[in-house]
Amino acid sequence: METFLFVLEIIGTVAFSVSGAMTAIKKNMDLFGVVILGLITAVGGGILRDLVLGITPPATFRDPVYSIVSVLCSLAIFLTAVRRALNHHHRLYDFTLFLMDSLGLGVFTVVGVRTAFLAGQGDNLFLLSFVGVITGVGGGVLRDVLAQQPPYIFVKHVYAVASLLGALACGLLWRVIPAVPAMAAGSLLVVTVRCLSAHYRWSLPHPHSAEETEKNGLT
Amino acid sequence: METFLFVLEIIGTVAFSVSGAMTAIKKNMDLFGVVILGLITAVGGGILRDLVLGITPPATFRDPVYSIVSVLCSLAIFLTAVRRALNHHHRLYDFTLFLMDSLGLGVFTVVGVRTAFLAGQGDNLFLLSFVGVITGVGGGVLRDVLAQQPPYIFVKHVYAVASLLGALACGLLWRVIPAVPAMAAGSLLVVTVRCLSAHYRWSLPHPHSAEETEKNGLT
Amino acid sequence: METFLFVLEIIGTVAFSVSGAMTAIKKNMDLFGVVILGLITAVGGGILRDLVLGITPPATFRDPVYSIVSVLCSLAIFLTAVRRALNHHHRLYDFTLFLMDSLGLGVFTVVGVRTAFLAGQGDNLFLLSFVGVITGVGGGVLRDVLAQQPPYIFVKHVYAVASLLGALACGLLWRVIPAVPAMAAGSLLVVTVRCLSAHYRWSLPHPHSAEETEKNGLT
Repeated sequence: METFLFVLEIIGTVAFSVSGAMTAIKKNMDLFGVVILGLITAVGGGILRDLVLGITPPATFRDPVYSIVSVLCSLAIFLTAVRRALNHHHRLYDFTLFLMDSLGLGVFTVVGVRTAFLAGQGDNLFLLSFVGVITGVGGGVLRDVLAQQPPYIFVKHVYAVASLLGALACGLLWRVIPAVPAMAAGSLLVVTVRCLSAHYRWSLPHPHSAEETEKNGLT
Repeated sequence: METFLFVLEIIGTVAFSVSGAMTAIKKNMDLFGVVILGLITAVGGGILRDLVLGITPPATFRDPVYSIVSVLCSLAIFLTAVRRALNHHHRLYDFTLFLMDSLGLGVFTVVGVRTAFLAGQGDNLFLLSFVGVITGVGGGVLRDVLAQQPPYIFVKHVYAVASLLGALACGLLWRVIPAVPAMAAGSLLVVTVRCLSAHYRWSLPHPHSAEETEKNGLT
Repeated sequence: METFLFVLEIIGTVAFSVSGAMTAIKKNMDLFGVVILGLITAVGGGILRDLVLGITPPATFRDPVYSIVSVLCSLAIFLTAVRRALNHHHRLYDFTLFLMDSLGLGVFTVVGVRTAFLAGQGDNLFLLSFVGVITGVGGGVLRDVLAQQPPYIFVKHVYAVASLLGALACGLLWRVIPAVPAMAAGSLLVVTVRCLSAHYRWSLPHPHSAEETEKNGLT
């Protein structure tokens, strides 16, 4: 279990660091900006989760391994980005960002559910899911607010909803099957919903007409 | 007392959900965006309050009723908004937003003061007021930051000050009269100050001249 | 020690209040906006620090002296700013803002390290530094996010890094020399690194070319 969890957390840390670093590169931040935004994206959700659960200092502050992995990832991304930016592979950029963000969302959602379980909140499915969603979307929200772009949770279809579905699935499965498959299934569900949503461009009703959308400029 | 408090909290939840949902609609967010921004606006202040007071997990995470009410409100607003947007009643929009925001501010301010009281901080009027203000303005600040608009606490005259006056009044009255009238008086004071401020367009000195204001564009 | 610490905290509070108030004045906020942004900048880092360390309610809420000093500073800045704005001393503005921000960064970084020490985390140099950096940069990040400008931690060269170096120096020195000189040295290091960085305009690699930088407009 410990190994499985560690692998999950490293996957999530790598994925969100890449997502934060790529966002910073798009905003043309310098080396330090890229590393800092990668780090905040990777550890932000876990810090919010621990604060909400009353776990102080948060795990991120006690064990440096996640921060070190995150900094190394952002450095690697920065160095390749310098080269890649010369070639302008916009599609590869968008696809990588989407994949990393979905992966981090899935992994951190179930890690959040597990942490709430261990904090003795296993009976309250509402709390489990809420904490899972906050852990999953927290890092990305901080990334977007600090990078001054519209938060993904508002503009990407079924983003928070994918996290919520994965958290609910994980929390329910936990009662009938062991933790490892429950967490794996929850993560997979999040990534699957995100991929389906992107592939079929699931569209939700907007309050205004299409013409107004263009004027307002937020899509 | 419990019934009174529950009614107050539901009023505040409804008011702030409407305020968050209307802001999201103005920003042309889709269905999920509207629900999420309504929810964050409604529960954000209470979560900040509980974190500051060391109450973990925050009340919002333990009892789903406030989140459910908030989601239903935002859904209702979204459905009517779709229709209303066709008619473009800008004045009605502005007035409703103002009223809901002032109501939520008044209610959550005194709920915050009460929570600090119960947490054993009744002797420290400074802390009581500070916690009241954070509970009152917290949801709106999160709403504005996430919706990428200038926070109300900076641009609406006497917004945080109205909350502070209500918190002080509630904290002082609590020592001489029962809790229910003290909280009612505090809430009313907040709403009254907000209404007077809006009606008379109370204007405060700005550092720059009027011409510069137009150039800078933030009013 | 207590006197030294109190003096440090007042210096940091004054410096960050001035920095927040000046930012608000640049954004043409009114009197209340200036006071509120000054206050948030001054007490924000300390509140984040205490939440992370599980110290609730945070010190800022228990002792009003820092808030009172902050409000008085912002009022003073506002009144002089009104007059100064007429004369447009842009260089003086930039220099004062830089100095105050660096001073606040240095002081709050070591105050954060000390608070983590007292919370029993003295053995974990990683945690000490992390908490020091959050205390140092937290107020400024909140100021920038609320004022809707790109956070200093991304756009000012070696801003967070200066704080990190000061925190590490303070945490390491603490083991060999008394607390007062360790804190003084850490603060001085932060201010020195900031000044050197500004004077020599230390430039870090950016992912895009110079032409693209101009287009994107974030430097």
